Amino acid sequence: MSLPAARDERRARATLSRAVEPGDEHAGRWLRRYGATGFLDRLLHTAGASPSGDPAEGDPFPGTGQKRVASWRLRATAADPDRDLATIHDLGGRFLIPGDTEWPRQLDDLEDARPVGLWVRGPADLRTWALRSVALVGARACTPYGAHTAADLATGLARQGWVVVSGAAYGIDGAAHRGALAAAGATVAVLACGVDSPYPRGHDQLIRRITEQGLVIGELPPDSHPTPSRFITRNRVIAALTRGTVVVEAQHRSGSLVTARAAARLGRHTMGVPGPVTSALSAGVHELLRGDATLVTDADEIVELVGDMGQLAPTRRGPVLPRDLLAPAAAHVLEAVPARGPTPTTVIARRAGVTPDETLARLYELHSLGFVERHGDGWELTRPGTPASNARRGGA
Amino acid sequence: MSLPAARDERRARATLSRAVEPGDEHAGRWLRRYGATGFLDRLLHTAGASPSGDPAEGDPFPGTGQKRVASWRLRATAADPDRDLATIHDLGGRFLIPGDTEWPRQLDDLEDARPVGLWVRGPADLRTWALRSVALVGARACTPYGAHTAADLATGLARQGWVVVSGAAYGIDGAAHRGALAAAGATVAVLACGVDSPYPRGHDQLIRRITEQGLVIGELPPDSHPTPSRFITRNRVIAALTRGTVVVEAQHRSGSLVTARAAARLGRHTMGVPGPVTSALSAGVHELLRGDATLVTDADEIVELVGDMGQLAPTRRGPVLPRDLLAPAAAHVLEAVPARGPTPTTVIARRAGVTPDETLARLYELHSLGFVERHGDGWELTRPGTPASNARRGGA
Repeated sequence: MSLPAARDERRARATLSRAVEPGDEHAGRWLRRYGATGFLDRLLHTAGASPSGDPAEGDPFPGTGQKRVASWRLRATAADPDRDLATIHDLGGRFLIPGDTEWPRQLDDLEDARPVGLWVRGPADLRTWALRSVALVGARACTPYGAHTAADLATGLARQGWVVVSGAAYGIDGAAHRGALAAAGATVAVLACGVDSPYPRGHDQLIRRITEQGLVIGELPPDSHPTPSRFITRNRVIAALTRGTVVVEAQHRSGSLVTARAAARLGRHTMGVPGPVTSALSAGVHELLRGDATLVTDADEIVELVGDMGQLAPTRRGPVLPRDLLAPAAAHVLEAVPARGPTPTTVIARRAGVTPDETLARLYELHSLGFVERHGDGWELTRPGTPASNARRGGA
Repeated sequence: MSLPAARDERRARATLSRAVEPGDEHAGRWLRRYGATGFLDRLLHTAGASPSGDPAEGDPFPGTGQKRVASWRLRATAADPDRDLATIHDLGGRFLIPGDTEWPRQLDDLEDARPVGLWVRGPADLRTWALRSVALVGARACTPYGAHTAADLATGLARQGWVVVSGAAYGIDGAAHRGALAAAGATVAVLACGVDSPYPRGHDQLIRRITEQGLVIGELPPDSHPTPSRFITRNRVIAALTRGTVVVEAQHRSGSLVTARAAARLGRHTMGVPGPVTSALSAGVHELLRGDATLVTDADEIVELVGDMGQLAPTRRGPVLPRDLLAPAAAHVLEAVPARGPTPTTVIARRAGVTPDETLARLYELHSLGFVERHGDGWELTRPGTPASNARRGGA
């Protein structure tokens, strides 16, 4: 057990990611006020209140319950950030913190509930992928209709170059990830546990495949287990990361509705897929649709809604940054896209001399940045000038 | 063949109902300007334009095409209003015209497309029934899901004392009527043909049953046949008559969507029942729900929407007119409702010494007027004072 080096922001956040439950807005407030190292210093090196709970003089976190602070302190003391960082490194992953180039800045909309950091596995750039992503969520015990529809929507989104984000659970989540993977598409699994210890166990293979062709991310450090409350707080990350959330099937009081409502509060699009009124698994979706959510029946309708990019994202057509500012790996794949398309990922991969998974990661990044477009199963270079009215659609 | 007596408004309108196609706004304009007898006088006794179509001096209907006027004239000349009025009388029905006590005044919202008159069969008072009515419409070639849902909604509406209006077609319409009838409820069939010559033939029995337990109405005089355009124009009557239109199943470009859009234009509530996105028979409904229509999944949700009565209708609880202003037949049935309810229709019928159908007609009228309430299969007297806040809900 080693004490964290208070001056190392990344190590401090790795420590806090173990000490603080995801979404803890008390911790978020102190983090905002003191920074990660300052917060941790205060937590570990200031004499706190008495364990009896009496508010003592010199309370380092006034207004935050002693029990909560004691729990943070206990877990921070037991943390081993160097080991956690080594673990994620050994898995080929990384621990992202705010300020990193790859940090998805839309998570800042969560304010004090923003993740302390994100543990990430997979070949793609999370920030770029998230710019053009949609969440597909829903019931674990879904119907065949729900599973079919989720897979179908995911395939449709993938074939239009959109990234499908979900929670890797059984049912709708799994169908969504599989639909994207099957279409050689991009998908992100946001876990409520450590990214080294996938849950549920029955999705071992699926989650492993996503770490190869997509991204597996989470707030919790290696070897963390999911809890009911962690599933709920995880949902806010799905909502914040994406441009909109689509609920495919959900009963009344379902966790998916929590995600949808979080999306709405964050100003994201909220969508629902209707189903038979005789199905309890559509009742929650219908409840949502009787509110402000938009009814969607296919991928086109989803893209029509979230594709209106506003200010957040790059233009729909045409690059937003000069080609020579691209990361070398992305520039290399871009060079392998033939002048006349559409060309399948595998062909581009062969031309570039890199794996298809690596190629796919770069192509979706290039798509988000406006350099390429996906049409069905092939990719082609964006023609920025045709037509001019589309070239800057959505604003630069 | 007898010439119409121009001074008899009812005979003139009976003639016009044969001469003019439903929804003809040209005719409606002249009808508004000259009245029915004046319009007919002008049509039959003024020298018109030359048959060649040249606008001649003395054109009695400037701005209306000569062909249209010639058609009106031809059909008006051939009309036999006395025979038509005798036919409806022999069937136990009546021909209603604006100004009649039983005329449903909400049809005036149709302005120049208002029906010239309504041919009506059945024991109930159309005006009172229409005050608390909802249209359930949808595809003829519906799915078992659609038929089940339509019947279920109709039963639910009937059990809350609402009148179910539909078009007597195969599929959703038939299921809606049957659902209401089966719950000993009130239902109105609006036909696109003469009320003596029901269409479709396979619904002979159903329509006959509605003439006994409900109302069968239409704009067309006896022995008129339906045409595709008559189905479309009929839909505006369904929309205008009711407080809202619910589309249960409809393909893209379905006639039911015409009804729904007419309802929206008239300021009525527009509702849709969702279904699987994989079903073409729900696609039209979903299109509607992606617009301004409200998604509904059960009768409670429909009543919640249309039950906010505004200014049009009587209060939700408590009578709006003194008991001694009731028609004798209604007053007689009201006396047979026991002080302590709820009491089934059949028991009330026995106490009143009239048929169950006649009793049901009166009970729904009494419900619209606020004297009684339906709870499940029974009726009870409204208790105006309990609670006070509900007694005048909706405004007097």
